[in-house]
Amino acid sequence: MSLPEKTQAFDIASLHAFYQDGGSVAEVVEAVFARIAEVDDPGIFIHLADKNAVLAEADKLGAFDPEKPLFGIPFAVKDNIDVAGMPTTAACPDYAYMPERDATVVGLLKAAGAIVIGKTNLDQFATGLAGVRSPYPIPRNAVDAKLVPGGSSSGSAVATAQGIVSFALGTDTAGSGRIPAGLNNIVGLKPSVGALSTTGVIPACRTLDCVSIFALTADDAWTVFSVAAKYDETDAYSKAVPATGFGSAPPVLTVGVPAKADLQFFGDTVMEAAYGDAVVMLTRLGHRIVEVPFGEFYKVANLLYEGAWVAERYAAVKPFFDTREESFHPVTRKIYGGAKSLSAADAFKGFYALQPLKKTLAPVIASVDLFCVPTAPTHYTVADLEAEPIRENSRLGTYTNFVNLLDMCGIAVPTGTRADGLPASVTLLAPFGHDGLTASLARDLHQASGLTLGATGWLLPAPSEMPAIVASDDLIDVIVVGAHLSGMPLNHQLTDLAGTFSRVAHTSAAYKLYALAGTVPPKPGMVRVAEGEGGEIEVEVWKLTPAAFGLFVAAIPSPLGIGTITLSDGTSAKGFLAEPFALQGALDITAFGGWRAYLKEFASLPRVGKTA
Amino acid sequence: MSLPEKTQAFDIASLHAFYQDGGSVAEVVEAVFARIAEVDDPGIFIHLADKNAVLAEADKLGAFDPEKPLFGIPFAVKDNIDVAGMPTTAACPDYAYMPERDATVVGLLKAAGAIVIGKTNLDQFATGLAGVRSPYPIPRNAVDAKLVPGGSSSGSAVATAQGIVSFALGTDTAGSGRIPAGLNNIVGLKPSVGALSTTGVIPACRTLDCVSIFALTADDAWTVFSVAAKYDETDAYSKAVPATGFGSAPPVLTVGVPAKADLQFFGDTVMEAAYGDAVVMLTRLGHRIVEVPFGEFYKVANLLYEGAWVAERYAAVKPFFDTREESFHPVTRKIYGGAKSLSAADAFKGFYALQPLKKTLAPVIASVDLFCVPTAPTHYTVADLEAEPIRENSRLGTYTNFVNLLDMCGIAVPTGTRADGLPASVTLLAPFGHDGLTASLARDLHQASGLTLGATGWLLPAPSEMPAIVASDDLIDVIVVGAHLSGMPLNHQLTDLAGTFSRVAHTSAAYKLYALAGTVPPKPGMVRVAEGEGGEIEVEVWKLTPAAFGLFVAAIPSPLGIGTITLSDGTSAKGFLAEPFALQGALDITAFGGWRAYLKEFASLPRVGKTA
Repeated sequence: MSLPEKTQAFDIASLHAFYQDGGSVAEVVEAVFARIAEVDDPGIFIHLADKNAVLAEADKLGAFDPEKPLFGIPFAVKDNIDVAGMPTTAACPDYAYMPERDATVVGLLKAAGAIVIGKTNLDQFATGLAGVRSPYPIPRNAVDAKLVPGGSSSGSAVATAQGIVSFALGTDTAGSGRIPAGLNNIVGLKPSVGALSTTGVIPACRTLDCVSIFALTADDAWTVFSVAAKYDETDAYSKAVPATGFGSAPPVLTVGVPAKADLQFFGDTVMEAAYGDAVVMLTRLGHRIVEVPFGEFYKVANLLYEGAWVAERYAAVKPFFDTREESFHPVTRKIYGGAKSLSAADAFKGFYALQPLKKTLAPVIASVDLFCVPTAPTHYTVADLEAEPIRENSRLGTYTNFVNLLDMCGIAVPTGTRADGLPASVTLLAPFGHDGLTASLARDLHQASGLTLGATGWLLPAPSEMPAIVASDDLIDVIVVGAHLSGMPLNHQLTDLAGTFSRVAHTSAAYKLYALAGTVPPKPGMVRVAEGEGGEIEVEVWKLTPAAFGLFVAAIPSPLGIGTITLSDGTSAKGFLAEPFALQGALDITAFGGWRAYLKEFASLPRVGKTA
Repeated sequence: MSLPEKTQAFDIASLHAFYQDGGSVAEVVEAVFARIAEVDDPGIFIHLADKNAVLAEADKLGAFDPEKPLFGIPFAVKDNIDVAGMPTTAACPDYAYMPERDATVVGLLKAAGAIVIGKTNLDQFATGLAGVRSPYPIPRNAVDAKLVPGGSSSGSAVATAQGIVSFALGTDTAGSGRIPAGLNNIVGLKPSVGALSTTGVIPACRTLDCVSIFALTADDAWTVFSVAAKYDETDAYSKAVPATGFGSAPPVLTVGVPAKADLQFFGDTVMEAAYGDAVVMLTRLGHRIVEVPFGEFYKVANLLYEGAWVAERYAAVKPFFDTREESFHPVTRKIYGGAKSLSAADAFKGFYALQPLKKTLAPVIASVDLFCVPTAPTHYTVADLEAEPIRENSRLGTYTNFVNLLDMCGIAVPTGTRADGLPASVTLLAPFGHDGLTASLARDLHQASGLTLGATGWLLPAPSEMPAIVASDDLIDVIVVGAHLSGMPLNHQLTDLAGTFSRVAHTSAAYKLYALAGTVPPKPGMVRVAEGEGGEIEVEVWKLTPAAFGLFVAAIPSPLGIGTITLSDGTSAKGFLAEPFALQGALDITAFGGWRAYLKEFASLPRVGKTA
């Protein structure tokens, strides 16, 4: 908000439109370096690429290739992730080395056409949430320079928020991919653990580390995720996470929020109000809010900086720490030093403490579609952190520290401007593999916020019509027609089975819809007739795993069953059909065009049946 | 084989037949104590129940109750598992305490009618595979007293093999539930990790520990498993493992065996020959053998006694070890003492070493239905172990140590008598949750062996017609009507998905069967009509897992689908129905009573359609 207006927005769609119209990647590279000069923040980059080298890379890309989802897109890389030919420091100059190979994710992004601009500053060894534990100058918060930028991925978040790059890679073990996004008015996608390879990334806690994505919009974060989320043989903790489920969020989601008594803002009533507004936005979007006790989540959060997982951080740099302790930032040294004397038995103590909490929380997590929490409980100034370097840092992690330990994915998204002009942000959280769902709802929230992007003043572009979704062979499409539609009484049977909403669709004109007699809850029955003799019925397509689909089908009572339904676009999938014997006494409601429309109409009619 | 013939076999079916015929539990209790006296092995029990107290328990059971699957069945409990009112020692007298409550599994078995006879000897703190690391007398191998009994569950295995009890509980972290079974000619079921609660069990490695089951037959082991495998809220590592899948093994299984070059018998060519014979038995039973390189499995096995997991053992008794080191068996003390100085960083080193091996082995494990390995590579004498207490113990674990680290389940089963008269045994291994499959094939192998039970001379009873299976909520019944019937062209779609045949049945008289026009292969379509207006159509019921059912349904082409079909016995299940629009031009063949009957008739008719 402090920068002069820029003419070319850097979100991916805008840049691709620029290229489509004949703009060159070289022009964009020139703009990147002009902005770096203009922003003039020596804290953002630890290593900046040589402009001529970047221009040479840009030249190699050739003409605009729409097949490359990141063609000509400038990005920055947190300096604990290897980029071949640029030193990796982890913000510890004595630790620096020159990698010969790109980290797996960097290689994937480059192959998709993205261009590395430089390596960004961070809390040393990715330990910290405020962004002030670095021997390099502290990056300035893009919105208000006296505030901390957030960490540990401070430089990546600020580079994105300042419009220097379209997106940036961070890492996230305790919240390092979410807090800086929340403090700089941008999107921070923290993938499911294992979705993005950590080969070529300096570990913090290897069992919990994620490579994360900062972007100007949820669309862009998802496009980057789709490119980067590839199973990697070379990373023992890599998992296959299909990049699916992004698009329209289901119309009605059950969203868990911390019970009022459990919310913590450390006296920041302005943040509290902003969070309240975000929850109201969710209800306006049609979603259901459920208050959930949060005490057990906080207990998990506290484990992250006790025993086992601090020891894991120490284990990652043990030989270096044991010989070069003086090379560490004083606060980081204190934290790591505390883990040096921990025994293997202490590590197991941590695991044993986590396990029952996981168990207690599993049904809580399963009881909602996703959670919405504040990204950070408050904004701190750099001066605050100088006064309380550990306590205030730790408070920033209130709503982030438990997430990776519970194997959840999340996305921080701007939701508005606080009464005092500072950024407001929430983080949406869901179980492993639901990255698409959280990103979809983040997109809706961002759209509803009416915000401009980061600190740039650029307008939020309209959501992409058809975001790049990698097809999943593994999920089975199920067409639902009646009580299983989102928001309807039996929809939970799909969400209980971790089903994901895919889209609204219509059948071919070969189906008749009936309101079945005497069903509780009221249900329709659909039957196929000759082409043209029926109507195009509105349906929803949901996706289930084979096992979930099997359980779902097994639970369907007579006279309903599952057959093959042809859609108006010519495709077909499995979906609900009714046995014809059940249509006796049923009302033909084909003319309404769908169950939702019929119910709406029906609700406004006198309830003849009820008064009888 | 050394005992005089006993008149009453102690397998569950034989005892229940005895009770059914008017025999009393008191008589069986008397027989138990008579046998204890006869066997006269002071090493088996650390604590023996008072006979009068057991008789009082027996009295409380009342008349034979066939609803109690373990009514009047005597069992023994390894002395690291709590039985209320009996001291728990873990074979470390200074560690002893008096539990007020039964371990969860003991409580479940008692509730099912089983009677505890006593607490059995073990390798101290369940650390050992030979059964000689105890301050109490070493239990004598039931087959040959100069051999080690196997451990750590030595007393439980010998008590079962000697016919003192029908079954006994052990524990298994490294192989303690399998090795002693293999060395004593009995069955040892090592459940999936988490299937049996460890609440009330002294931990060895809490993250890997299993309660295991020694029994005379696979049928009995499965009955006990069905009773004991219950999800336990109080055990943070408990998992819901349905007791399903036991019965007839599928006719053709793909069985992995270690590649010849990777087999290790440490010079015991007699054991090598016996193992070869067992593999031949598998092929005679119709199964396919696939040789698999075993180097990576051995690497996993080696991790179990390095770093992390030895430290986990130490962590389990840390305060006691740190203050009472002299209370430990000298060998156990040496092992635990080595873990004392391990750091938390060392623990993580172990996890990081395991993870890539897990990853490499996952596709290998998935490439077969199950594995068949020797249970132990050789028999050792007690003198051998005195000479080499650590090396020979470690060699016993060649084929067992990797199993829990890879989250597999297993069952050791006798396969014959070696050329020198000693027991031969293999262990069948499969991924988590496949306990039923391994037990089913173990039953087939045991039957094929022609062996008597343990050291008792009792004949192996015929396999239970309908083994006591806790109803499987997890398998889904599918009613097939046409081309999926056994022997028909599409039946492989069921068997490819590991579907199992359940029974032939008939629909209620509310279905009409049609021969659909123009289908390849020829298919019928069934539709429901009003009760009495159709015929009772012959169908087959098959069972599929939810995932298999999901894939099966997803592959069914229009106009067929899956609905709910009512059978003539009043039950209903999911099965094939046809959409009515498809019946145009179809021939009503209801009168034939089924697709098989129609095809038979049709085959004998002139093929009018073909000559046209």
